Amino acid sequence: MIAAESNSPPAGPPFEPDRRLAEYETLLDIGVKLSGTLELATVLELALENAEEVCRAETSSIWELDEERKELFFRVVRGSAAGAIRDLRVPLGAGIVGSVAASGEAEVVNDVAADPRWQGDASDEFQTRAILAVPLRAQGKIIGVVQLLNPVGRDRFTAGDLWRMRQFAAILAPALQNARLWTAQRRQFFHTVTALAEALEKRDPYTGGHVRRVVAYTVLLGRQMGLSREELRDLRLAATLHDVGKITIPDRILGKPSPLEPDEVEIMRRHAADGASIVSHLANPWVLHGVRSHHERVDGKGYPDGLTDPEIPLAARIIAVADTYDAMTTSRPYRSGLPHERAAAEILGSAGTQFCPRVVTAFRALCDLGRFSLETAEDAVRAISDVNPQP
Amino acid sequence: MIAAESNSPPAGPPFEPDRRLAEYETLLDIGVKLSGTLELATVLELALENAEEVCRAETSSIWELDEERKELFFRVVRGSAAGAIRDLRVPLGAGIVGSVAASGEAEVVNDVAADPRWQGDASDEFQTRAILAVPLRAQGKIIGVVQLLNPVGRDRFTAGDLWRMRQFAAILAPALQNARLWTAQRRQFFHTVTALAEALEKRDPYTGGHVRRVVAYTVLLGRQMGLSREELRDLRLAATLHDVGKITIPDRILGKPSPLEPDEVEIMRRHAADGASIVSHLANPWVLHGVRSHHERVDGKGYPDGLTDPEIPLAARIIAVADTYDAMTTSRPYRSGLPHERAAAEILGSAGTQFCPRVVTAFRALCDLGRFSLETAEDAVRAISDVNPQP
Repeated sequence: MIAAESNSPPAGPPFEPDRRLAEYETLLDIGVKLSGTLELATVLELALENAEEVCRAETSSIWELDEERKELFFRVVRGSAAGAIRDLRVPLGAGIVGSVAASGEAEVVNDVAADPRWQGDASDEFQTRAILAVPLRAQGKIIGVVQLLNPVGRDRFTAGDLWRMRQFAAILAPALQNARLWTAQRRQFFHTVTALAEALEKRDPYTGGHVRRVVAYTVLLGRQMGLSREELRDLRLAATLHDVGKITIPDRILGKPSPLEPDEVEIMRRHAADGASIVSHLANPWVLHGVRSHHERVDGKGYPDGLTDPEIPLAARIIAVADTYDAMTTSRPYRSGLPHERAAAEILGSAGTQFCPRVVTAFRALCDLGRFSLETAEDAVRAISDVNPQP
Repeated sequence: MIAAESNSPPAGPPFEPDRRLAEYETLLDIGVKLSGTLELATVLELALENAEEVCRAETSSIWELDEERKELFFRVVRGSAAGAIRDLRVPLGAGIVGSVAASGEAEVVNDVAADPRWQGDASDEFQTRAILAVPLRAQGKIIGVVQLLNPVGRDRFTAGDLWRMRQFAAILAPALQNARLWTAQRRQFFHTVTALAEALEKRDPYTGGHVRRVVAYTVLLGRQMGLSREELRDLRLAATLHDVGKITIPDRILGKPSPLEPDEVEIMRRHAADGASIVSHLANPWVLHGVRSHHERVDGKGYPDGLTDPEIPLAARIIAVADTYDAMTTSRPYRSGLPHERAAAEILGSAGTQFCPRVVTAFRALCDLGRFSLETAEDAVRAISDVNPQP
């Protein structure tokens, strides 16, 4: 076992002088790559790719520390041991990975069978011979461990491997921490806005779950239309907030158990422009347009701006179909919800008048495949949700 | 002039072999430091500190590209030219810095007077002789320029200086971009939540501006009590959302122009627990506690949980004083607002019964200094606001 003393790092890399520059150049490149994104999934993928570039091994993995439970959970793995350890959680201090996280000292164990802490392989499919495990430290705290199993093309992990992985861990840890913070902040933002939009919806006694369903149908249609993951996320936020302007509509109109009078319709219609003014701080065109223009019609008879086909933003076109479909298929006190077939026929028949023909084409394709359902739609939402930064 | 060809970077650093490792070690250290934070102000400060470590110069500065206006704006500067150029904006393509941003090519100009692009110094206090300007590129796009003026301890900027600054810019650009994205996301989150809270408040015709004032008084009291900038930000969010549970209270109670009946008081009081359930997704204890417990009293007679002194969270104690002070000093249809002196006397007289004595001590100290005012409070809020990522 080679224990690395964190207090006395070697003065320079343990390589021939000719190799040293190349080692540093590789590390600098990796650092620039890792800091080039805040997406947690991308950072993790780059991390393992580059761990293998730095030190060839049969398997590499990253463990993160769940501070509350004092456990390491398994974040990503490459190589043949993947299946066996995906769901493992290891108490802080247990085994070799847990002991590296607890001590904060990097370790090479070239004969695991001889190490009293070794707890055996999780499956027969993979036999661990040697481990190189290095703690990940951000802002002075251990946040996880990066681990390599079984060197490839050499007998043992060397002092050079240890040096490289320690340098690599120093670069990876802040990138991983930044991506976790970023993802956590984005999730919080989205969940808070969703919670507010859903609370708001409770004022209207007849539309329980409307926001959630419109979000799901909107994302499903957007995905069918080929939008990117980032675009779908913006669209999801727009759909979540599409009715936020109803915040200012009085209860007596919002909760009226019968059709509205013309003056009440006028007040109800204000929600589109009022909503747009509430979300104007977001400075996100998808959200702004989706909220303001989801009641526009391609024939120009919609509101608040009476836009016509080429002027209506894409987010609004998509939300319009999702919103109308959900309104038609759910019951109100003064009318029953339509079955899917009837509602779908209405949507198809309104292409080019109420709805954008391109969105209706996507809707029709999903219907033809039997895939325009709430279940499929909610799967589409889950697929664009963030990696949980702390499972 | 030494023009660096971005297509053909030098194969290695132009230094004696002995120096090369030290150069790389410095760069790796800088990379780890820069990626250790997402705070824009900290990244900028570290950037200039380290630019000077990399290449000594009389002045260093960072310019960012405002893509919409096609202008470089001036972000930070160190050294003697600071005063003269703080408000400068330079069109893309103009002068040496603008030309580096437009071409994406690093440049050394060792005799600025001989360069036709040179537009002269902004002030007599500083005389520019030589410029080293390197573009900052993130995800393939130019986001700004880092610039050094006048080498110290040598006649000219050298090929070694250029090499170092290009390496440095490659490390700095993603760190700067990440901090801009992080800050922009945090601002968006905060502004969206504020816009929603303020829209919500409009349902209650008698409390216009209450949220904004409670936020300000809360931050002022928190600062007086010695809370950190991060804590004050959490506290600000808690105060912004303190009444969010009122979303579910019917208009007839919320807007009643006379004191409430006992059953209506019961419904009104639900806003604390309802609000806590809305913000539970934030997973932020300051916000959760501030929203749930801002109507608790240290004598145990508050709601919703009847907590007593040691159990009431700090956020709730502070918001309670700010909220009550604002309610007392503003008018309702059935009573006029009190002048400051009367309201302050009420607060001081309720220390140990309704209010936490420590918060009241902070309130008294501010009153004694004549600093418990809306103006001072709003200054305190501005002081903890984010650096604008795109002025």
